[in-house]
Amino acid sequence: MIIPGQFVLTLSCPDRAGIVAAVSNHLAAQGGNIIEAQQFGDAETGRFFMRLVFEDTERDLDALKQGFDAFAQTLAMQWTLRNRAQRRRVMLLVSKFDHCLADILYRWRIGELPMDIAGVIANHPRETYRHIDLDGIPFHYLPVDRNSRADQEGVLEALIEQSGTDLVVLARYMQILSNDLARKLAGRCINIHHSFLPGFKGARPYHQAYRRGVKLIGATAHFVTAELDEGPIIEQDIERVTHADTPEDLIRIGRDIERRVLARTLRLYLDDRVLLNGSKTVVFHS
Amino acid sequence: MIIPGQFVLTLSCPDRAGIVAAVSNHLAAQGGNIIEAQQFGDAETGRFFMRLVFEDTERDLDALKQGFDAFAQTLAMQWTLRNRAQRRRVMLLVSKFDHCLADILYRWRIGELPMDIAGVIANHPRETYRHIDLDGIPFHYLPVDRNSRADQEGVLEALIEQSGTDLVVLARYMQILSNDLARKLAGRCINIHHSFLPGFKGARPYHQAYRRGVKLIGATAHFVTAELDEGPIIEQDIERVTHADTPEDLIRIGRDIERRVLARTLRLYLDDRVLLNGSKTVVFHS
Amino acid sequence: MIIPGQFVLTLSCPDRAGIVAAVSNHLAAQGGNIIEAQQFGDAETGRFFMRLVFEDTERDLDALKQGFDAFAQTLAMQWTLRNRAQRRRVMLLVSKFDHCLADILYRWRIGELPMDIAGVIANHPRETYRHIDLDGIPFHYLPVDRNSRADQEGVLEALIEQSGTDLVVLARYMQILSNDLARKLAGRCINIHHSFLPGFKGARPYHQAYRRGVKLIGATAHFVTAELDEGPIIEQDIERVTHADTPEDLIRIGRDIERRVLARTLRLYLDDRVLLNGSKTVVFHS
Amino acid sequence: MIIPGQFVLTLSCPDRAGIVAAVSNHLAAQGGNIIEAQQFGDAETGRFFMRLVFEDTERDLDALKQGFDAFAQTLAMQWTLRNRAQRRRVMLLVSKFDHCLADILYRWRIGELPMDIAGVIANHPRETYRHIDLDGIPFHYLPVDRNSRADQEGVLEALIEQSGTDLVVLARYMQILSNDLARKLAGRCINIHHSFLPGFKGARPYHQAYRRGVKLIGATAHFVTAELDEGPIIEQDIERVTHADTPEDLIRIGRDIERRVLARTLRLYLDDRVLLNGSKTVVFHS
Repeated sequence: MIIPGQFVLTLSCPDRAGIVAAVSNHLAAQGGNIIEAQQFGDAETGRFFMRLVFEDTERDLDALKQGFDAFAQTLAMQWTLRNRAQRRRVMLLVSKFDHCLADILYRWRIGELPMDIAGVIANHPRETYRHIDLDGIPFHYLPVDRNSRADQEGVLEALIEQSGTDLVVLARYMQILSNDLARKLAGRCINIHHSFLPGFKGARPYHQAYRRGVKLIGATAHFVTAELDEGPIIEQDIERVTHADTPEDLIRIGRDIERRVLARTLRLYLDDRVLLNGSKTVVFHS
Repeated sequence: MIIPGQFVLTLSCPDRAGIVAAVSNHLAAQGGNIIEAQQFGDAETGRFFMRLVFEDTERDLDALKQGFDAFAQTLAMQWTLRNRAQRRRVMLLVSKFDHCLADILYRWRIGELPMDIAGVIANHPRETYRHIDLDGIPFHYLPVDRNSRADQEGVLEALIEQSGTDLVVLARYMQILSNDLARKLAGRCINIHHSFLPGFKGARPYHQAYRRGVKLIGATAHFVTAELDEGPIIEQDIERVTHADTPEDLIRIGRDIERRVLARTLRLYLDDRVLLNGSKTVVFHS
Repeated sequence: MIIPGQFVLTLSCPDRAGIVAAVSNHLAAQGGNIIEAQQFGDAETGRFFMRLVFEDTERDLDALKQGFDAFAQTLAMQWTLRNRAQRRRVMLLVSKFDHCLADILYRWRIGELPMDIAGVIANHPRETYRHIDLDGIPFHYLPVDRNSRADQEGVLEALIEQSGTDLVVLARYMQILSNDLARKLAGRCINIHHSFLPGFKGARPYHQAYRRGVKLIGATAHFVTAELDEGPIIEQDIERVTHADTPEDLIRIGRDIERRVLARTLRLYLDDRVLLNGSKTVVFHS
Repeated sequence: MIIPGQFVLTLSCPDRAGIVAAVSNHLAAQGGNIIEAQQFGDAETGRFFMRLVFEDTERDLDALKQGFDAFAQTLAMQWTLRNRAQRRRVMLLVSKFDHCLADILYRWRIGELPMDIAGVIANHPRETYRHIDLDGIPFHYLPVDRNSRADQEGVLEALIEQSGTDLVVLARYMQILSNDLARKLAGRCINIHHSFLPGFKGARPYHQAYRRGVKLIGATAHFVTAELDEGPIIEQDIERVTHADTPEDLIRIGRDIERRVLARTLRLYLDDRVLLNGSKTVVFHS
């Protein structure tokens, strides 16, 4: 997936005639060869979204950015440009249940997830994850209780900042971030919620699902916002369950859903396929 | 699926040791040969559920019922016994959108749904469904507005009663039954709701889903109760959607989910595979 | 889906740098506003595929075609250009089982499938489909036996030609087309095969699946070629089955898979989303 | 899932009237309380299959076996009886790709798979799996080449025997067992094949799938028999793919299918839910 000399451009702007051609033209004029282009015009909001992958063998990222900036301003664009070979730094937050953590680490190790891991932050000690080979990844034990919450979030924020973290992943991290931190991390903090949102928000969703007697359970990956479990949804999936499944069965079945939904979401995000559109997302699948 | 001389027994009772053997034994002692047996003990409520299919070439339904009654009382059972060859009478209620109606009629015609159709009741005139061959099935036009609601429900109830209806199916019938009628039809009135409950209760669920930006939409078949969209869930299914799907796309995609969820539910119900368990269901799949 | 003034362009050509920009640029220069653009470079064959939707309020189809032709030749393109408002004419072929026919007609009637139906050709008499309202669609009864096969195929071909048919759909038509006719209809004749190809080619696939004891059964929509069940696959889907399902159960479950796979395929084709790539297809999902 | 004092009985025998009642009755007469009972009569072969879970607080496994033996003979039964608390010993065989191995070990560690691991046998050295914490599980490096094949299989067989292995799992073990060993392990050796059988038997199935242009890929868990990839199928699953997926993408997507299909199969097997029925299986889902 990572090829030197390939760049990914994402942009959004007010929709108007001619954007696709204008962007294509601009990149071609600079010597770029477009490999992939996807776009979406949101008829409801009048906003336009685009993702392009192009090759450029002559310019580096800075030159390309400089070349794009003036053009982007004429269309009032919000945009990002990334060298596909440049890996993002991802910080993994985890609580007691480590199935998502173990799964992400395995996929990262075999090359499924093109990223660097900035660290693992847990509110349980290293011993809890003793069977997991962290392979030199920094581990930070950050126990949280009522009194320490504010202080520990300060430490958390400092760790994110000092480690050069691009993306924070709440990989079944069961502590709620403050509104303030949620806002600071807007668009670069992803949570995996163990229900098919908007059903079963909040605590113990599998127990809620058991009580309601649903025939499918699910998991939802979403951006974290100040409103709990209300952030823009990126990816969801479900599994079939029956009356015979206990809450413990739902939890077990749910582990599989959670880890595959989170892994898919990470791959999408790392390939710049997830764009924010207000309280929703635009996800350009391949 | 319908074989003369085959009977289906469903029962529920307080759980205790020995029920499976006691029931098996009782049926065998009467000369029945058990073909299928499924059971479920709800550890939370202490209630036991069972479904048996057996052949009996000597006794008819009445004799079998008589033979079972005294035994059932000793275990405080609620039970039903049906000759599998005896078709249930089903009343179909429909509003403007007829995809579920057309689908049910097609499946019934080719033998997928072993039932007799007692009639079709619609709050739109016969002309709305002019392309559908009702093949002699009684059609009742029952327009409803604010003033006529109570009167028309009286007519509806009379039609259900006079036609010997066993099961009422709200096949995208967009009128809400009164609490009183909902209670009278408890356990024998099924609705198809066009969302993955408990998400998006109430009106215009596809528009709700669009606004929330979910990545899966669904449909839910449930028993009708006095609480809107809160009845025991029987069956659910979903389809994947994307940011590019408009509310109209969701409605189109949803039609497919609705009709297959409702058709599966009908098949399950008609084969006595759906048992009520308080606010939940026990569904014995084959 | 059908909007006057919208055009769909599909093309394929040898891959080289700059095609996306060149095409975008060409359309924009002519006054077209690109709404959607999808592309795929097949690294194995070195062939490039593209689909564009654009609006043009000044030119009609002929003018646009004229304008595109010279440009297309410079890149050795194969291409099609269609006014999205111009419906294709579809001929439906059916044998005894009419679930796909009934389903397609229903979807067409409510506007899910933007096409005109050129006719229905069946090797069973009209009486077989007596419950289906053809609504004035020409019906042709073309019984086929060993001796009449060649003659009847001549009639079939004439019907296709005289009716201005753009696409032939074998909607569970159980007669095999001659190699000659298959070649003549290359790229515009679609079959629904009742197995998850390449498993269970040929006759009675559900019985084959039953004997093999598979846990999933499927259906496959593909272009018809001279090699039976070997044509380019467009769409597939599956359902879960169990040891308890008889061949008759598989046939019943399969009906649902067949009709949804065929309906999806038709929608994709009618929106110019299906491109041939040798023995495979490129399918641009929305 | 493992509860002391619970026993699982599986049996098969020629079908005849009264078996369910006879078995239920026999167990009850001995003091057992039946918790679950599932049965299947294969109309094609005339063979009957049953699985029962019962509690018995008075007898141990030997007493129960003795009590059942004479009864079973009267019905010509093949049967197994297991104390649910008694874990099976499972030997894991693996080649270079360790995603199934890592997944099984994780699930075993957190209690999803109630088994003891007798050992890991690999044709690659321990170093290949250096990131996996084997936690004291014996590891056997058994490199295989053309000349050593027969000798190494002797070692393999000895390891299986000496370790008291009940079940052998080929967790992406890419060496083919000899017909002789396959026969010796009949019914207790499971393989995960990386295609949706019977499509794409043999080597490099994902490359085969890519060339055929299928729109779904799958994996199949089956009992190993002397005929390669022809053993009784236990479980299958699929994922959707597109024209844009390269063989490497299919391999990546396939890893997820393989590991979940194998894990489900193991759970089913360990709970005595998988019965052999000639070249097919009976799988009693919960």
